[in-house]
Amino acid sequence: MPVNFATPAPQALLPVAGVRLGVAEAGIRKKDRRDLTLIALDAGSTVAGVFTQNRFCAAPVQLCRANLAAGAGIRALVINTGIANAGTGEPGRLAAQETCRAVADRLGIAAEQVLPFSTGVILEPLPVDRLVAGMPAALADLRSDNWHAAAHAIMTTDTVAKAASRTVAVDGKKVTISGMSKGAGMIKPNMATMLGFLATDAGIAQPLLEALVREAADESFNCITVDGDTSTNDSFVMIATGHSGAAFASGAEPGWPVLRAAIIAVAVELALAIVRDGEGATKLITIAVGGGRDRDECRKVGYAIGHSPLVKTAFFASDPNLGRILAAIGYAGIADLDVDGVRVWLDDVLVAERGGRAAAYREEDGARVMKQAEIAVRVDLGRGAAAATVYTCDFSYDYVKINADYRS
Amino acid sequence: MPVNFATPAPQALLPVAGVRLGVAEAGIRKKDRRDLTLIALDAGSTVAGVFTQNRFCAAPVQLCRANLAAGAGIRALVINTGIANAGTGEPGRLAAQETCRAVADRLGIAAEQVLPFSTGVILEPLPVDRLVAGMPAALADLRSDNWHAAAHAIMTTDTVAKAASRTVAVDGKKVTISGMSKGAGMIKPNMATMLGFLATDAGIAQPLLEALVREAADESFNCITVDGDTSTNDSFVMIATGHSGAAFASGAEPGWPVLRAAIIAVAVELALAIVRDGEGATKLITIAVGGGRDRDECRKVGYAIGHSPLVKTAFFASDPNLGRILAAIGYAGIADLDVDGVRVWLDDVLVAERGGRAAAYREEDGARVMKQAEIAVRVDLGRGAAAATVYTCDFSYDYVKINADYRS
Repeated sequence: MPVNFATPAPQALLPVAGVRLGVAEAGIRKKDRRDLTLIALDAGSTVAGVFTQNRFCAAPVQLCRANLAAGAGIRALVINTGIANAGTGEPGRLAAQETCRAVADRLGIAAEQVLPFSTGVILEPLPVDRLVAGMPAALADLRSDNWHAAAHAIMTTDTVAKAASRTVAVDGKKVTISGMSKGAGMIKPNMATMLGFLATDAGIAQPLLEALVREAADESFNCITVDGDTSTNDSFVMIATGHSGAAFASGAEPGWPVLRAAIIAVAVELALAIVRDGEGATKLITIAVGGGRDRDECRKVGYAIGHSPLVKTAFFASDPNLGRILAAIGYAGIADLDVDGVRVWLDDVLVAERGGRAAAYREEDGARVMKQAEIAVRVDLGRGAAAATVYTCDFSYDYVKINADYRS
Repeated sequence: MPVNFATPAPQALLPVAGVRLGVAEAGIRKKDRRDLTLIALDAGSTVAGVFTQNRFCAAPVQLCRANLAAGAGIRALVINTGIANAGTGEPGRLAAQETCRAVADRLGIAAEQVLPFSTGVILEPLPVDRLVAGMPAALADLRSDNWHAAAHAIMTTDTVAKAASRTVAVDGKKVTISGMSKGAGMIKPNMATMLGFLATDAGIAQPLLEALVREAADESFNCITVDGDTSTNDSFVMIATGHSGAAFASGAEPGWPVLRAAIIAVAVELALAIVRDGEGATKLITIAVGGGRDRDECRKVGYAIGHSPLVKTAFFASDPNLGRILAAIGYAGIADLDVDGVRVWLDDVLVAERGGRAAAYREEDGARVMKQAEIAVRVDLGRGAAAATVYTCDFSYDYVKINADYRS
């Protein structure tokens, strides 16, 4: 059960002119499961992406990077679940190429105009034949009002499909933004989530889109963690079709800040949906760290708290065993941290200051906050003006159950 | 249930001449529990220690550092469980000082000659009055053949007491080494375990003992992890009484390599006992990383694997979902790692090479090894001659249960 998140109704997910989506059952790894998604883009769209920093990055990630760099104009994305096509060496790279070629042949475009994505089990070969055999059904299903089905088809251990839409008036034009994401475990994106896709009918010039996708990832997917495991397949891709008539070349246009903020807000919504649906999650924890010398040290503290199994099990138990948070701050790697200057709050309850428990802190206040489904941990490092926020979930029996059972 | 470890019988734990131990029930946090341990040392002993690098280090850790630096000759150690006296600010420092003074007054020594240790809940005040009230009983219990009782009295969530003894012939003298340790969660020592004590009746000059305690910690406690949480109270202390007549001033003595190796072996045994008894542990995992450019990058890879909840739950499930190990190697932080040169074995089974699954690998071979209670993961990074080993355990429902319930 995700924490305060439900998949929007099909009609709440808005078509983006120039983007069509189709899904199919290819039987990649399990039967009776829509596991193949095709996204077709009109000519003239710009596309940019950010990808995992994992050195064992998947074959499709390698090919995405190459095809984006080729600059031939991306016209299609193909996504499979079940098998990650990671840790598959040269045969994996050939399988990803074959997938792109099959899509390209059917759409009458070049293979370099296709971006492939895979998610699922690592170290097992991708059954390209099954994937290719499923393609006609996905092609026949291509429709612009198909985001709901696509958001479902990219799920693995997700318990809900994750998608979001909004419209924004920019320079007198109505611009639509729709996106979807998937991921529940192996989540500590270091460039994106397992998979995230966001499309707008604004026109955004390639260099501007590339800067925006990095910025949006940094504000959203790069701030979340479920279990501290950075996936081999993390990909976050942004598409701008230009069909709305609103067009941005440099970012100096008056409407740009409005569009930029709206796109980042959708990215944050998609990223938070992943944490809310984190494997076994019962609570959403927002860790806001301020008073740091730079953003990097604030992030270190946020991730130390957000990765600590002891902190996360205490949240699961609704036990205000808050010394565990101090311990995590202490080992976060700030060598010259003066702990007497650190202050820690649970929502609005001051928990710790001057190196110890706050004088006014009462256990019942901590216990009250710990029972909530959404909790903010606020840390003031007391040594500067930088800040960073990390989002995570608690750590429950079900995380162990899901991950002990995942392949069976 | 610890993995292949049982507390040695009382008579198997050998007295170290010059070291007496006493335990008592002080009621620090729970009733009917021996929670206070006193260790008295004969005059002339040398003592050295290594302590946590956690910035929120406990008050007793701060005082241990100061009293060792004072150089007055350590004559006693006092250890309580229940309350960690960490995250307790200035009142915590005063409580640790009062504890030392109470011991010193009763033994007729100076307060700077006492080292204090605490372990338990962080952020709660130490009830010094109860600790002091329990002291006469601990003093009355002081005996050299009391290691078994002391090893029990320093336990918290440990399911077994951890201790080891051995004798070694050095330069014609029989030298005895005995030690004990405690710790089961919040275990990723960054200088030592929660608490480790090792005594020998060899004489070891202060600078030599200081070098040895660092070296031994680096080979033992600093190679283990249960949950990646570095404690606020980690302390590892080594005592040399000199009563055996074997004496070492410079380390150039012919018997030194023998004694050094024996002491490190006991430290490794005590450290591994902690992993074998890690909270919820059902398996001991040894991660041996070789072929690195330096030891640091091998450790990074070892800890990335050893901390990954996904890897650890797969071990718990006996599921050879080995792509998770590749993913952890990939995000360990070696920016220029060529994954095609990496090889991974599970015991003697080659799992991965050339960036993917090894051609000869069969799932049933992986499954066979995964069922064992002790498993070695071997990684060859293929880029150098450095190596490092990390020891960890699997991640089970019981870890969550223990840590969700710890304070209740």
